[in-house]
Amino acid sequence: MSLLAIGTMAFDAIESPYGKTDKIIGGSCTYISLAASYFTPNVNVVAVVGEDFPQEYIDMLTAKGVNLDGLQIKKGEKSFFWSGRYHNNMNSRDTLVTDLNVLADFDPIVPESYQDCEYLMLGNLTPIVQMQAIERLKNRPKLIVMDTMNFWMDIAMDDLKKVLKKIDVLCINDEEARQLSGEYSLRNAAKKILEMGPNTLIIKKGEHGALLFKDNKIFFCPALVLEQVFDPTGAGDTFVGGFIGYLAKNGDLSFENMKRAIVHGSALASFCVEKFGTDRMIGLSEAEISDRIAEFQDLAGFDV
Amino acid sequence: MSLLAIGTMAFDAIESPYGKTDKIIGGSCTYISLAASYFTPNVNVVAVVGEDFPQEYIDMLTAKGVNLDGLQIKKGEKSFFWSGRYHNNMNSRDTLVTDLNVLADFDPIVPESYQDCEYLMLGNLTPIVQMQAIERLKNRPKLIVMDTMNFWMDIAMDDLKKVLKKIDVLCINDEEARQLSGEYSLRNAAKKILEMGPNTLIIKKGEHGALLFKDNKIFFCPALVLEQVFDPTGAGDTFVGGFIGYLAKNGDLSFENMKRAIVHGSALASFCVEKFGTDRMIGLSEAEISDRIAEFQDLAGFDV
Repeated sequence: MSLLAIGTMAFDAIESPYGKTDKIIGGSCTYISLAASYFTPNVNVVAVVGEDFPQEYIDMLTAKGVNLDGLQIKKGEKSFFWSGRYHNNMNSRDTLVTDLNVLADFDPIVPESYQDCEYLMLGNLTPIVQMQAIERLKNRPKLIVMDTMNFWMDIAMDDLKKVLKKIDVLCINDEEARQLSGEYSLRNAAKKILEMGPNTLIIKKGEHGALLFKDNKIFFCPALVLEQVFDPTGAGDTFVGGFIGYLAKNGDLSFENMKRAIVHGSALASFCVEKFGTDRMIGLSEAEISDRIAEFQDLAGFDV
Repeated sequence: MSLLAIGTMAFDAIESPYGKTDKIIGGSCTYISLAASYFTPNVNVVAVVGEDFPQEYIDMLTAKGVNLDGLQIKKGEKSFFWSGRYHNNMNSRDTLVTDLNVLADFDPIVPESYQDCEYLMLGNLTPIVQMQAIERLKNRPKLIVMDTMNFWMDIAMDDLKKVLKKIDVLCINDEEARQLSGEYSLRNAAKKILEMGPNTLIIKKGEHGALLFKDNKIFFCPALVLEQVFDPTGAGDTFVGGFIGYLAKNGDLSFENMKRAIVHGSALASFCVEKFGTDRMIGLSEAEISDRIAEFQDLAGFDV
C-alpha cells in the first residue's frame, strides 16, 4: 500500500565526539523515505529543496524506489541547512546554525498521482504545513502518523493541538511528552495526550528504547546495547519511517502488528547511528535487518 | 538453599514531592531480606542496629521467616540514620543527614549456624566490611552477589577492586558502571567490568529498566510504566534481594534463569516504590506478584 511522506530534505553539518562532517544530506523526509523503502515499495515524497541539492542523491532515492514527483526544486534558492554539535553523552546537542532557506515558504503541494496514498507520514515541520498536507488529500488516509518537537510546543502549541485532532499516531520523545501533557509520569502523560486526538502514542527514549500506548495497552521496545553511537542524527526519523513503512507493507493496524512495526523501526534506527548521516542507511541487506531483529528478540525475550 | 544477606538495618527519613516521613525503617539488608523472603524460606541476616531499633520490626522480619541470629543489637547505641530529599523527577536526591552511629565500627560476625549458606548477598557497605564477610565464611558460597555505590568508588576504589575479584555478580547503576569502567557506552563498560572479577554484571537504570551481561550475552528487562513513583528508597535493594532470592530458590545459575530472576526482582521493586519505605513490601500475596510478572510479559513480549 502506498505511503506519502512529507518533511524536509536538507543539508546537515554535524560535530560529534567522533568527528565532524562537511555539509551532508539529511532532513526528516530523507531518513523517513529511506527507512520506509526497506519495507514497502511505494513511497512518495513531498518536500522542497534548492538548486544546490545534489542530483546524485535524488537518483539514489529514486533507485531505492522512492517516488520524488512531489519534490519541489527551487531554482536559484538554497536547501534548508542545519548544523549541530553533540555532547559527549550523545543524548543532548546544541544547534549551531539553522538556515531555513527554501523551507521558509514551503507550500506542500500534493501531486494528483499521490491522492490514493493510504499512509501519511508527517515528518517534523511547522504544524501549519502539516495541517495543509492533511487538508490537501481528498480522501482521509487509513493512517496518519505525525512527528513533531518541543520547538513547536514552545512557539506554535495552538496550531500543533489542531493537527493532533486530525491524526492517528503521535511519535515524540519523553521530554516532549512531558512538555505536551504537563505530566512527569509517562503513563499519565500518555493518558492526557491520547485525549488530545491521536489513538496511539509512541514515546521515544533514545538509548532507553521506546514505548507504545494504545487502547490501555503498553508495549516497551528496548534499544540495542551498542558499542558506540556514532551520530544520532536522523535516528528518530529512521525509527518512525521504519514503523510506518512496516505497517504500510501489510496493512495490519492491530496492536500486535504495531509492536512488530516498532521493533522494525528500532532495528533500522540502530543502523542509522552507526555512521554519520545516511551513510549506514543506504544498501542494507535483508539479512542484516533480519539479524538485527533477532538481536531484539534475544535481548528482550524471557519465559517465566 | 540458604541465603546470607549482609548490609544495613537502619532508620530513614524521606522527603519526596508526595510527602515526608518521620524516622521509618530502612537499610539495604532490610529490603534485601524482605524481598528474598518472598522466594526462598531460608534467609539469614548479618547486620548491626542500636538499642533504638524497634522490636516489632524485628518480630515482623522473623515472622517472614528471616533468621536474625546474626543481628547485633548494641546496648546504649543508636542505629544508622539516613535522611534524603528526592527531586521532582525522583531520579536524583540530596542526602540531608548521614549518622553512621553503630555502623562506624561494624564487625560483621558470621554465626556458626550460617556457615553453610550457599548464596551470599553483600549489600551496600564499605568494601572492607564486605571483604570481611567473604573471608569469614569457611566455604566459598556457590554465588556471591555484591551491591555497591559511587561513594565507595570515590573514597575506597582500591578496596572495592579487591572485593570485585572475589565475587560472581556485581549490581550497580548506569552512572556507577560508567565511573567504575571509565567508559560511556554500557556495552564497553560491561566488558571492562567483567575483566575486573565478576562473571556477571547487572546494570540498574531505574525507570529505564535493567541490563544483565554474562558470557557475551545481554538481557534487557524493562521497568513497568507506573502511574506514580512514590518513594524510590530501597528499590535497588529490593531488586537485588529478589534476584538472589529467586536464584537461591531453585539453584539454577544459567543465563536463562538469571533472566527470570531479574524479572522477579524488577517485579518486587515495582511494588517497593508505590509507598514510603517498606510499607508496600510487607504482606504481598503470591497472586499480586504473579500478576505483576504477567505485566512484564505483556509489556516486553512480541513475536516477529
